Amino acid sequence: MIDRLIEKIKATNAPIVVGLDPMMKFVPEHIRKKAFAEYGETLEGAAEAVWQYNKGIVDAIYDLIPAVKPQIAMYEQFGIPGMIAFKRTVDYCKEKGLVVIGDVKRGDIGSTSEAYAAAHLGKVQVGSRTYSGFDEDFATVNPYLGSDGIRPFLKVCSEEKKGIFVLVKTSNPSSGEFQDRQVDGKPLYELVGRQVAAWGEECMGETYSNVGAVVGATYPEQGRALRKLMPKTFILVPGYGAQGGKGADLVHFFNEDGLGAIVNSSRGIIAAYQQEQYARFGAEGYGDAARAAVEAMREDIASALNGR
Amino acid sequence: MIDRLIEKIKATNAPIVVGLDPMMKFVPEHIRKKAFAEYGETLEGAAEAVWQYNKGIVDAIYDLIPAVKPQIAMYEQFGIPGMIAFKRTVDYCKEKGLVVIGDVKRGDIGSTSEAYAAAHLGKVQVGSRTYSGFDEDFATVNPYLGSDGIRPFLKVCSEEKKGIFVLVKTSNPSSGEFQDRQVDGKPLYELVGRQVAAWGEECMGETYSNVGAVVGATYPEQGRALRKLMPKTFILVPGYGAQGGKGADLVHFFNEDGLGAIVNSSRGIIAAYQQEQYARFGAEGYGDAARAAVEAMREDIASALNGR
Repeated sequence: MIDRLIEKIKATNAPIVVGLDPMMKFVPEHIRKKAFAEYGETLEGAAEAVWQYNKGIVDAIYDLIPAVKPQIAMYEQFGIPGMIAFKRTVDYCKEKGLVVIGDVKRGDIGSTSEAYAAAHLGKVQVGSRTYSGFDEDFATVNPYLGSDGIRPFLKVCSEEKKGIFVLVKTSNPSSGEFQDRQVDGKPLYELVGRQVAAWGEECMGETYSNVGAVVGATYPEQGRALRKLMPKTFILVPGYGAQGGKGADLVHFFNEDGLGAIVNSSRGIIAAYQQEQYARFGAEGYGDAARAAVEAMREDIASALNGR
Repeated sequence: MIDRLIEKIKATNAPIVVGLDPMMKFVPEHIRKKAFAEYGETLEGAAEAVWQYNKGIVDAIYDLIPAVKPQIAMYEQFGIPGMIAFKRTVDYCKEKGLVVIGDVKRGDIGSTSEAYAAAHLGKVQVGSRTYSGFDEDFATVNPYLGSDGIRPFLKVCSEEKKGIFVLVKTSNPSSGEFQDRQVDGKPLYELVGRQVAAWGEECMGETYSNVGAVVGATYPEQGRALRKLMPKTFILVPGYGAQGGKGADLVHFFNEDGLGAIVNSSRGIIAAYQQEQYARFGAEGYGDAARAAVEAMREDIASALNGR
């Protein structure tokens, strides 16, 4: 799956993934009103609003970008109807030719990770038949439980030609609380990064591994160090835009080949219409605003990469 | 919620939580056949089998135990129908008066953890109304992202009188890969344990905190050390039975007051009928086998605690 992602990054010239994290405060009022008129102020109504909102964004930008990253928590909070909206979003994005990174941050002991891997990337056996539960292309995974929590994902990635991104150094302010602690004179995130590179060897694509890493744009120096430690590891970089990461910070996450990283922006794209810079589009034009924001982000990253 | 859990542990004299991890290989054939006859070999059929299986177990043991712990991965693998079976199980167990620990191992950056906390423990706003997504009593949480990933859960625990159990030292063989690494001369899990105790101070019940810890029965020595480091922290102890933990190993997880720990068994109870020891019950009697296994586990723990 990493090969397909790279192919799409090259075709769009955009190492960008758009986070489909549809918080209700981002959903334009006309969409909310219509959904509530049809389903009431219910979980079903919220899920319908989320789905229509997502669809508008995807329709407006799918040709510009290689991938989307729906954050499952934003759907899970709306219970079963929310999960249906998640699945519908995943399916629709795949129909549109997008690579779908399920931001699920799952991870557990062996047999349970097997079930999570089946749920999000693989298939489950039911009697004599097999089914896919959610069927994303990539999933994000938490490493705290160690190798036997990760191996079931590697197995499914090999069988189903899928991929994972393992949390290494997350973008949030307190990520250092455990991740930066010194272990044998090196921060824990480096130890995790080395292990991610080792896991990645078991599941290689053509030039990069199907096992990627999550490293926040908010930590460019750590990104530089990790880039060198994990040369064949694709880095998923959250934290651009709203969380404070800038284009210039991103160059350290890329290899000399111009590849090796894909930068996520969520609210910076999907709620662009709420920013002063894109206010001219209005709430009705939220899709066009998202498109303009993707184009600006592509330009920001390209000029940062050209300038290095 | 920890006060309610403790009250129920005292009433049942059983510091036991039964893991409702319904792998298809545990579900008796007569239940699978009936579900597939009605719904076909579909995700709906699998979910119906899982639900009927769970219901049979809960009906057979609910008066003996304080709590259940459904492992969401085992439901998530069956997609939307599986999530419906999860919700139905949670609701049914609560109706039966059981405390429900959602074994979801969620955890993310601030705003996303907020959504997970709302999904599993809290409420979500939809227009002028509020709803609960899954509404467990406790949830398990992964600490890798640090305090700002945990705080949203603490907030919801305080508001909704719910609780969490944070992963500290997990029961699986490779848990030491990161968790045992030395940080300032102490293993990482101790650092996490101290932090769990600190978070716990913000969310106290009467004598124990609503912020608990997960420490595997397979690591009794580590359990002993963590017990001392976190005196007011309730420990959820997985790994008893099938994973190799024994009653005698468990005493270290309890405080002198006989409280402070709740021991999980999953397949040892729910698939007891597949063990030689309980084979006499047959597949039709899987609920009675589960009941006998709970009684034996209660006896094992009580005699270990009495013998110390």
